[in-house]
Amino acid sequence: MAETPVRFAILGCADIAQKLSRAINLSPNSTLYAVGSRSFDKAKKFAAENGFPPSAKIYGSYEAVLDDPDVDAVYIPLPTSLHVRWALLAAEKKKHLLLEKPVALNVAEFDQIIEACEVNGLQFMDGTMWMHHPRTAMMKEILSDTQRFGHLKTVHSFVSWAGDDDFLKNNIRVKQDLDGLGALGDAGWYCIRSILWACDFELPNTVIALRGPVLSEAGVILACGSSLQWEDGKTATFHCSFLSNVAMDIIAFGTKGSLYVHDFVIPYLEKSASFSAASTNGYTEIVTGRFALPFEHVVTTDLPQEVCMVREFSSLVKSIKECGSKPESEWPSISRKTQLVLDAVKVSIERGFEPVQVGA
Amino acid sequence: MAETPVRFAILGCADIAQKLSRAINLSPNSTLYAVGSRSFDKAKKFAAENGFPPSAKIYGSYEAVLDDPDVDAVYIPLPTSLHVRWALLAAEKKKHLLLEKPVALNVAEFDQIIEACEVNGLQFMDGTMWMHHPRTAMMKEILSDTQRFGHLKTVHSFVSWAGDDDFLKNNIRVKQDLDGLGALGDAGWYCIRSILWACDFELPNTVIALRGPVLSEAGVILACGSSLQWEDGKTATFHCSFLSNVAMDIIAFGTKGSLYVHDFVIPYLEKSASFSAASTNGYTEIVTGRFALPFEHVVTTDLPQEVCMVREFSSLVKSIKECGSKPESEWPSISRKTQLVLDAVKVSIERGFEPVQVGA
Repeated sequence: MAETPVRFAILGCADIAQKLSRAINLSPNSTLYAVGSRSFDKAKKFAAENGFPPSAKIYGSYEAVLDDPDVDAVYIPLPTSLHVRWALLAAEKKKHLLLEKPVALNVAEFDQIIEACEVNGLQFMDGTMWMHHPRTAMMKEILSDTQRFGHLKTVHSFVSWAGDDDFLKNNIRVKQDLDGLGALGDAGWYCIRSILWACDFELPNTVIALRGPVLSEAGVILACGSSLQWEDGKTATFHCSFLSNVAMDIIAFGTKGSLYVHDFVIPYLEKSASFSAASTNGYTEIVTGRFALPFEHVVTTDLPQEVCMVREFSSLVKSIKECGSKPESEWPSISRKTQLVLDAVKVSIERGFEPVQVGA
Repeated sequence: MAETPVRFAILGCADIAQKLSRAINLSPNSTLYAVGSRSFDKAKKFAAENGFPPSAKIYGSYEAVLDDPDVDAVYIPLPTSLHVRWALLAAEKKKHLLLEKPVALNVAEFDQIIEACEVNGLQFMDGTMWMHHPRTAMMKEILSDTQRFGHLKTVHSFVSWAGDDDFLKNNIRVKQDLDGLGALGDAGWYCIRSILWACDFELPNTVIALRGPVLSEAGVILACGSSLQWEDGKTATFHCSFLSNVAMDIIAFGTKGSLYVHDFVIPYLEKSASFSAASTNGYTEIVTGRFALPFEHVVTTDLPQEVCMVREFSSLVKSIKECGSKPESEWPSISRKTQLVLDAVKVSIERGFEPVQVGA
């Protein structure tokens, strides 16, 4: 029984689905079972090019995928505006859900998705791959070490890439009707998740968008930033953008230590990733004023982070299917918190940079 | 004539004066000529312990130092609240001025100092050492390279150190009557200077302090942050603190490149300093999503940055003394801009985080 892999179906042929197809193939507890597209030919071509076995089911509609009783789980990389519709239908058809980020256009939509998963006893997880890299756990260990790091005081996250003219005009991510959250929903999702992660997923009290966001002609966010404040005095800032060079940085400062990672979303290398940390770097000599160098930590991994994600997701699905376990509620909970903060930043921008309470 | 070194006097025996004494000694065009303290014995001890030549003049008051006609230049590391008084008297006595940062409690005070220097034909420079490290010029070269870096979009600066209980209660830097600007005047000065430096000293239109500054019981800033906005859409943030682990970071993102430096205020090593830069790190492969690693640049220097500073200052003083040159106005100009932004951040905090126009 333990050897039965989770049978995955993919809805749509988004670019990112190439990466996930490879991950499902590489994950020992998962198998590529079906792919569906509004175009049968596109689905067929996608399957042929992305390592689907010859036995894989090819469907010319998303409905047909969801109607297949042998599909255990679906990966949904559709544009955000379509998430609620297809996630709800998938849940109704009893498919476990691996959903791309941002999970929804707002938390009200997402709450419908979570409810449908709960009612149907389904596992939910969003596609935030870096959460599953072993480096992430090791960084968390340092942040949690009150001897080495002390207490977190402030954290800063920067995620960006420079879209070319074609991206900024035609990509799904800048289309009001498809991914209306723009850079905030995409690059900003990573920023917000990383900040919440550093804060043990404690929600901030308030967020205030920073002035100077850049909007497209259609009103979609191309770049923006925000500050966040917690009850205990912790603060954070982030900046997300489609208009500047690649950035994937988390910088966290505690009372006794610091942590730096420059490629947290996608590690530079697939099997080895690093970060640096410093601890109580006080003055060592007042006249020359030297400080100790931060220490570089290297974490190796046999499986790329997206494979770790699929493996974790499938392991939870198998527990439910084979052992009658309950779905793990931590994953939808952190998706929801991320969306809550994202919504608050968007409202703050819309209200002219007013402070916005983060709803519970 | 060219070999005549500039004769320096130091006002007071602050800790940082130890570093400057060493720098003056190491600088080929400068000599330690005198030191004055309100206590003659303290001055004598300081001179003995900090490499002053046996011929050095020891004075039991600041006035006596300034009355010595053979003093060319004074280094003033006194608490900020005393700057205007002693800088004005020094200028009246025709002493060139190397003044510790923050240069004054506000720009109105500083304008009196600049005016006194101008009227008396004196060189002014503030003690921001990292500006003089050859690494700084090399980083500027990259920021200015439109091929490699593109156009600057956003810059972030973090400067902090964790003061112990004694520091947070008794250090000059947290005394309302001595250094009333607290962490903003000290760590924040470096943040603001680094942001202005990255922006070619173009002033922002507006600054808005971030919520959540930490004040001492006496009302002195122990930690705070701000966002800054420019006419052309550039943005910046900074965080300065006496309450978290050592940080000295500049992170700048352009349309085509990025720049990271983690020890800009005081390099980890005295004779070799590094920074990293990346350029057009686009996706190299969509499925595995790899990015090019940033490139580490190493800059060596025979002279520590504080010696470079003294050498530059003395070279300007010698030009004035020996060649009748005019004082270099760029140095007081960037001091003034730094103070202007600092003042605006302080006002924004006082006004409950309102946007504040940066005065000209």
